[in-house]
Amino acid sequence: MTLLRHIRACNSYRPERFIPLILAGERVGLLRRDNAEILRRFPEAFKIGAEIAELRIAGDAETRTARLDQVVEALVAEGLVGKWRNEVFAVAPHWGAAPVFNLDRGAVSFFGVRAYGVHMNGYRRAADGIWLWIGRRSPLKLVSPGKLDNLVAGGVGGGLGAWETLVKEAEEEASIPESLVAKAHAVGAVSYKMEVTQGLRDDVLFLYDLETPAEFVPQNRDGELVEFMPMKASEALARVSETDDFKFNVNLTIIDFALRHGLLKPEEPDYLDLLVGLHRGGE
Amino acid sequence: MTLLRHIRACNSYRPERFIPLILAGERVGLLRRDNAEILRRFPEAFKIGAEIAELRIAGDAETRTARLDQVVEALVAEGLVGKWRNEVFAVAPHWGAAPVFNLDRGAVSFFGVRAYGVHMNGYRRAADGIWLWIGRRSPLKLVSPGKLDNLVAGGVGGGLGAWETLVKEAEEEASIPESLVAKAHAVGAVSYKMEVTQGLRDDVLFLYDLETPAEFVPQNRDGELVEFMPMKASEALARVSETDDFKFNVNLTIIDFALRHGLLKPEEPDYLDLLVGLHRGGE
Repeated sequence: MTLLRHIRACNSYRPERFIPLILAGERVGLLRRDNAEILRRFPEAFKIGAEIAELRIAGDAETRTARLDQVVEALVAEGLVGKWRNEVFAVAPHWGAAPVFNLDRGAVSFFGVRAYGVHMNGYRRAADGIWLWIGRRSPLKLVSPGKLDNLVAGGVGGGLGAWETLVKEAEEEASIPESLVAKAHAVGAVSYKMEVTQGLRDDVLFLYDLETPAEFVPQNRDGELVEFMPMKASEALARVSETDDFKFNVNLTIIDFALRHGLLKPEEPDYLDLLVGLHRGGE
Repeated sequence: MTLLRHIRACNSYRPERFIPLILAGERVGLLRRDNAEILRRFPEAFKIGAEIAELRIAGDAETRTARLDQVVEALVAEGLVGKWRNEVFAVAPHWGAAPVFNLDRGAVSFFGVRAYGVHMNGYRRAADGIWLWIGRRSPLKLVSPGKLDNLVAGGVGGGLGAWETLVKEAEEEASIPESLVAKAHAVGAVSYKMEVTQGLRDDVLFLYDLETPAEFVPQNRDGELVEFMPMKASEALARVSETDDFKFNVNLTIIDFALRHGLLKPEEPDYLDLLVGLHRGGE
């Protein structure tokens, strides 16, 4: 089995290549050193030191957001940031804290700010084991086109909390009514820090399980997923192990599902490394 | 809520107070510095340096075990180790590796070798939520007398694997027949490193969930638990939060259960710290 390779791939972060972006004494991002150099041209917004960068825009979250939007526009104009979808992420020093500014999703990895998402496993118990509803991503998606995905997944943003995001995405991605998604329950999270072309993905994915009724068949509405298929959970895990058919971070959510539902057992030599590895990015 | 205090209490390890105990290039234990000093009197078995201790008993696992038993006997004679129960732990550099020696359970924390246990949640779904079977430990136990405990728990040792230990303890502690325990499934593990009087507990607890039938009532056979009670999972979590009624490490297994079954939700500000904290000891 080579499940660990996916955890390693998602945890490619090398701390020595990054410096913290600090606001009011708390870390709000992780800047790759070359990105920090670029920000030297905005000295009224950033103070860039050798081992630390400070955000020094006076005022409230709204003021910071407006000034940072100008910086992002300048970076986009030079092709340093690919501005994307006008989807807004609320940035806070830690989960549950008040946002200190908003940032367009396209700039999140340039600044290495932590982003949160929700992923929901839809599953059904049958005589031959557990089956998962697996989606296939549109070939037109910017990230991981054509790859396999969970039943529902999406980024937390636009002022919505984790649960509200799940309800919204469940409706858009799989036509799951709120009365059904209400039966889902939180089951934990996976986290990782992954170096990407533009900087760093510092991601936390909150996970939910939904046991779906026998008559339930998901249908996509927003074009982000092009098909849904039932797949034995054991087959999904085997494909995670042997192929790269799944989206990079969905490999982690499938491994987490397998660990919680007994498809992986302590007798597996990598058991502890897998468990620890799924939560490595969260500190 | 003050759930995090239990995770902090179980992760009291201060690395600067310990040095690794090395065998053939791999760490097999963590020796508190004063314990390492004591081992200087056995130079034919240990080479004690400033920042590293080496086990240098030539031969195979059996030879090492015999020689270490003599060392432990000497330590017990001086009251430095409380030899205990003649329960044998197989010591390996990591989970799944071949044992390099056996050690009496009473000496495990003196040497800071990693110990493995199994804990099983017995639960039942009812109209008003999930109920857990909670045991009360005998007032005669050496560790955590009279405290609340899981339905089944025990140390992995004596040549048994995790699953075999679970089957054995389920029979002894709760009269659960093998046909019922076979319906349990692995759900993960919690891990922690806790400083104790004698040295260090470097513990990994493999966790299992068993959905118990309505007619099931556990009965203890070995005298280690004096009663079993059904308790709403939400009440168990509230008691973990507000009291020290549960055994120190069972607080962690209840928090893990609550995270996996949706009793704790991402909207809880400590959600990520709890999740990361439960796996902190595992690396």
